[in-house]
Amino acid sequence: MNIPQTSLPRVVIVGGGFAGLALAKGLENKEVQVVLLDKHNYHTFQPLLYQVATGGLEPDSIAFPIRKLFNNLKYYHFRLAEVVKIHSSKNEIETTIGNLSYDYLVIATGSKTNFFGNKSIEKYAMEMKSIPQSLNIRSLVLENFEEALLTSDFEERKALMNFIIVGGGPTGVELAGALAEMKKAILPKDYPDLDIREMQINLIQGSDRLIDAMSKKASKKAEDFLVNLGVNVWKNVHVTNYDGDLVTTNTNETFKAATVIWAAGVQGETIGGLEQHCIVERANRITVDAYNKVEGYTNIFAIGDVASMNSDKNPHGHPMMAQPALQQGKLLAKNILAVLKSKPLKPFVYNDKGSMATIGRNKAVVDLPTVKFQGVFAWFVWMFVHLFSLIGFRNRAVVFMNWVYNYIRFDRESRLIIRPFKNKSKESFK
Amino acid sequence: MNIPQTSLPRVVIVGGGFAGLALAKGLENKEVQVVLLDKHNYHTFQPLLYQVATGGLEPDSIAFPIRKLFNNLKYYHFRLAEVVKIHSSKNEIETTIGNLSYDYLVIATGSKTNFFGNKSIEKYAMEMKSIPQSLNIRSLVLENFEEALLTSDFEERKALMNFIIVGGGPTGVELAGALAEMKKAILPKDYPDLDIREMQINLIQGSDRLIDAMSKKASKKAEDFLVNLGVNVWKNVHVTNYDGDLVTTNTNETFKAATVIWAAGVQGETIGGLEQHCIVERANRITVDAYNKVEGYTNIFAIGDVASMNSDKNPHGHPMMAQPALQQGKLLAKNILAVLKSKPLKPFVYNDKGSMATIGRNKAVVDLPTVKFQGVFAWFVWMFVHLFSLIGFRNRAVVFMNWVYNYIRFDRESRLIIRPFKNKSKESFK
Repeated sequence: MNIPQTSLPRVVIVGGGFAGLALAKGLENKEVQVVLLDKHNYHTFQPLLYQVATGGLEPDSIAFPIRKLFNNLKYYHFRLAEVVKIHSSKNEIETTIGNLSYDYLVIATGSKTNFFGNKSIEKYAMEMKSIPQSLNIRSLVLENFEEALLTSDFEERKALMNFIIVGGGPTGVELAGALAEMKKAILPKDYPDLDIREMQINLIQGSDRLIDAMSKKASKKAEDFLVNLGVNVWKNVHVTNYDGDLVTTNTNETFKAATVIWAAGVQGETIGGLEQHCIVERANRITVDAYNKVEGYTNIFAIGDVASMNSDKNPHGHPMMAQPALQQGKLLAKNILAVLKSKPLKPFVYNDKGSMATIGRNKAVVDLPTVKFQGVFAWFVWMFVHLFSLIGFRNRAVVFMNWVYNYIRFDRESRLIIRPFKNKSKESFK
Repeated sequence: MNIPQTSLPRVVIVGGGFAGLALAKGLENKEVQVVLLDKHNYHTFQPLLYQVATGGLEPDSIAFPIRKLFNNLKYYHFRLAEVVKIHSSKNEIETTIGNLSYDYLVIATGSKTNFFGNKSIEKYAMEMKSIPQSLNIRSLVLENFEEALLTSDFEERKALMNFIIVGGGPTGVELAGALAEMKKAILPKDYPDLDIREMQINLIQGSDRLIDAMSKKASKKAEDFLVNLGVNVWKNVHVTNYDGDLVTTNTNETFKAATVIWAAGVQGETIGGLEQHCIVERANRITVDAYNKVEGYTNIFAIGDVASMNSDKNPHGHPMMAQPALQQGKLLAKNILAVLKSKPLKPFVYNDKGSMATIGRNKAVVDLPTVKFQGVFAWFVWMFVHLFSLIGFRNRAVVFMNWVYNYIRFDRESRLIIRPFKNKSKESFK
């Protein structure tokens, strides 16, 4: 793969998400060679993907070129590649651009959408885990409106204007809120020829409350906010199928809809070649010990969403979110350096800083360890935290400017249909 | 097509470029129904496409959603469609979304790349007339660098790092300057493993000077600026073929290159169904009279790039640029209203406000009717004019912010490879 051989131990990191970048940052200017691989040449700030999907932000402002993060570092190498298989007996990985040996391998591949084996849903429902997928949703929403203009068939038009979001976690809730804001402020002006009342936003949640990882108060408020925005919230309903036309559920409820966005589950994005016993079937994650070392290996680690570290507090591993990923990446940097110096390692303890979700224009719910609050102040906190979590001054400035503009003008100007209209399909632009 | 029938005369405008939008704006709140068709749902500010192609600006900031321009106007209808054919005997057009009758039809379809019949060049060379095409170039440039890292074959690597721009008009010159800036400030930092001296930028011009529509002084200075930036300028050289690998010319010069960007010519984007005699073979434009009326028709007009209006000053029609398009659109609005009131029409007289081109970081050439100047001041004028020609406050603010940031930081942060790496081809993302 044309990576220079040095006398330094080589740490190969697979994945430039929160975990992988935190690790790479922690190894800067230390006595290691770092090779970072990713299938994209940019880092994606996933918490704001829903704003790209709904035209509030341009994709470039929530992404950051990975190479730029490691400019001027001598022993850092980035390669645009996907890992095909780990050959642990040879300490080597097989990738789309050739093989590469490692001294330490860190799997930070993150997660992908979990369709729970339903091939039909996988084929027809939209995902929102990457920038291209979010751009696809943006195009589809607008394309459906353009198409709705063309039909005088009431049923067909209703299906084109019916948006089903499956999964009432933070992603589903934030997306539903943003779509509801589009329904209120933008679409009626853009499509005066349509009756906006025919647009329906249905949020379908399997459990008995929204964002069920947060407090009951947060769930209740999030639901109130959404209902006030005109979103139909369905609880205790499981989607059983979607054939591109009809959504069926485990209740009598069915939905005719041209758009289904699947935010009902994620699973680890594992790499082939590991022993079967290290893969937890539940959520397809890799079992790691308290030092993020993969069960049964001495020099392979997994961090972030893909890693499942069981503790008393988190019997099924930590939540698949940014915070554990960042913290694990940071700690693993220290632990790898400790290994090199034969010093004792520090076990990972998750510091839960709390969680939050925003709903529409100026509402959010925030659960901090010490205090829980909802409403306008929560929304300011949400904005502040997200703005400062973005990488790069330019990104922060552009996002801030767009938010101020969108807020004052009740607008979202990034509503370009970038893919060709005739290629309307899930696959056209990934 | 589901356009409401009214008692007002219906003006159908095909194309939402400079000409079409100027016309539509001029007909606002007048006694006509306006139907605007475009194959995109956004207006593209073409003069800045080269900055999208080179990572300086995000696409959303040089585009504007067309629907937003005509919010709140009662008798305005936008439809996302392409026109297939004009049936002038029935006063009807055939489109991808059905037929539509018109009282007045205005063709404002603009221009497309002219490959002068060379199918091989058409297949392998990149174009830069639309946002998706510019994003394609951006991806290709970066992908070639990623690929160059992987090969130890010198010839192959040199070809991957060899950029050929064919056509030394404003587009070619501006693109060459922007690429040269990337070579200077960004690529060496992003790709320390490559020898940046292996990167070549070749600008090939058929005539004996660059931007030959401008003054000789401007040509000379533009060439000086480019040469100083390290661009190889070839004059009096015609590219005869490109097979995806080798560029051949009418001289002994050949170039092995993975990237050829074709900026060597444009032609009118005409619509089928017009009598053959109204199409000028040269540049495929539609012959119009001094009122932009298409030869031989009473209620069909053509404006902008696609229209060829011959005058003493411009025996081959006006230059295919923004200014004539804007002016023709504006005047035609008045003339259509005059027709409706049976008042006399005003013939079109082109007011040449001058032209300009920018070369790299802080150089430009400006020809005004009264004065011609080059250098840093010209560059400020160029920026000012382009910033204020953009539609929309948000776009202006985002572009301004990016320019300031890029200038201070010697950076261009929009360098995401958005299309899938393996789909590296001209067609993957159009």
